[in-house]
Amino acid sequence: MKNNLILETAHLLLKNNIESNDVIIDATMGNGNDTIFLAEHAKFVYAFDIQKQAIIETQKKLDQHQIKNVQLILDSHENFNKYITKFKGVVFNLGYLPKGDKSITTKKEVTIRTIKLMLPLLDAKGFILIVVYPGHPEGNFESIALTSYFSELNPLLYKLLKVDLPFQDNQPPYIYMIIKIKDESN
Amino acid sequence: MKNNLILETAHLLLKNNIESNDVIIDATMGNGNDTIFLAEHAKFVYAFDIQKQAIIETQKKLDQHQIKNVQLILDSHENFNKYITKFKGVVFNLGYLPKGDKSITTKKEVTIRTIKLMLPLLDAKGFILIVVYPGHPEGNFESIALTSYFSELNPLLYKLLKVDLPFQDNQPPYIYMIIKIKDESN
Repeated sequence: MKNNLILETAHLLLKNNIESNDVIIDATMGNGNDTIFLAEHAKFVYAFDIQKQAIIETQKKLDQHQIKNVQLILDSHENFNKYITKFKGVVFNLGYLPKGDKSITTKKEVTIRTIKLMLPLLDAKGFILIVVYPGHPEGNFESIALTSYFSELNPLLYKLLKVDLPFQDNQPPYIYMIIKIKDESN
Repeated sequence: MKNNLILETAHLLLKNNIESNDVIIDATMGNGNDTIFLAEHAKFVYAFDIQKQAIIETQKKLDQHQIKNVQLILDSHENFNKYITKFKGVVFNLGYLPKGDKSITTKKEVTIRTIKLMLPLLDAKGFILIVVYPGHPEGNFESIALTSYFSELNPLLYKLLKVDLPFQDNQPPYIYMIIKIKDESN
């Protein structure tokens, strides 16, 4: 395993759940590393970020790798349904843009509002994978709010998987993965 | 994802950590399903069980699949070092033999004693993956004892990953995976 066990495990889970015919939302483009990874495994990726810098950095990487099956969208992921209404899965890598303005970070209200909008649109076997960073203050609020929200998911419709590194002092990142097991309309 | 998210994730983690040249210990042969899976990914598997029934069932499956890179050993995993002293990883799938005598189950003292013997023998990048079943009484004692023991692992030598299904009422199985990041002799 590489150094970052959590990100490596997130990629393992994604690879196992994404098929070459799937459309995926990258809700937090950031530096574009996940966008590239998703584009290599899915049919098409819609990637969102509210910062121009993220779009520029990610576009550079897409050009370098000659990847074309991605649309970069300068907008909040909250507005995803202006651009796309049918998708297999969603990835959130929460927090702030690495090497960017640390005051611009995902906020718990928006994150949860967006997840609430997305869940009913998922097909059976669809998923939302979230990497949570409780090690900074806003990330800790987000972690607590997500945990509270997920504790009330209907277990007949959704399975919730958690991957973490217990007993560490520094509040390392961890994964929540929600998998839809049954369509609500059935 | 298949129905059993925890076993599926255990197999994902194993596949990601086992190379075709590795020697692996299956500490809990049981019905032989993990033994087969490990043999398909590793160079050689030493599989232990204290019940003759497990050996017979697993031998049948090995014959069916024409798998030969396995040694089945009718002995407690605690005595592993009578048979093998160098290995890349170990798998424990705790509890009792499915469809077997439910009074014969792994016991927390033996499990922890065995893990304590194994950890120093692991190479860097070596691992022990344990599927824990807190849903039956002895499994719950085992879960508590393992958690307490792992909370005191040296984080400079070992990383501990946990995969579980939070907020379920029925105490579902979960995974602990210990990965050695540095050899103690270094």
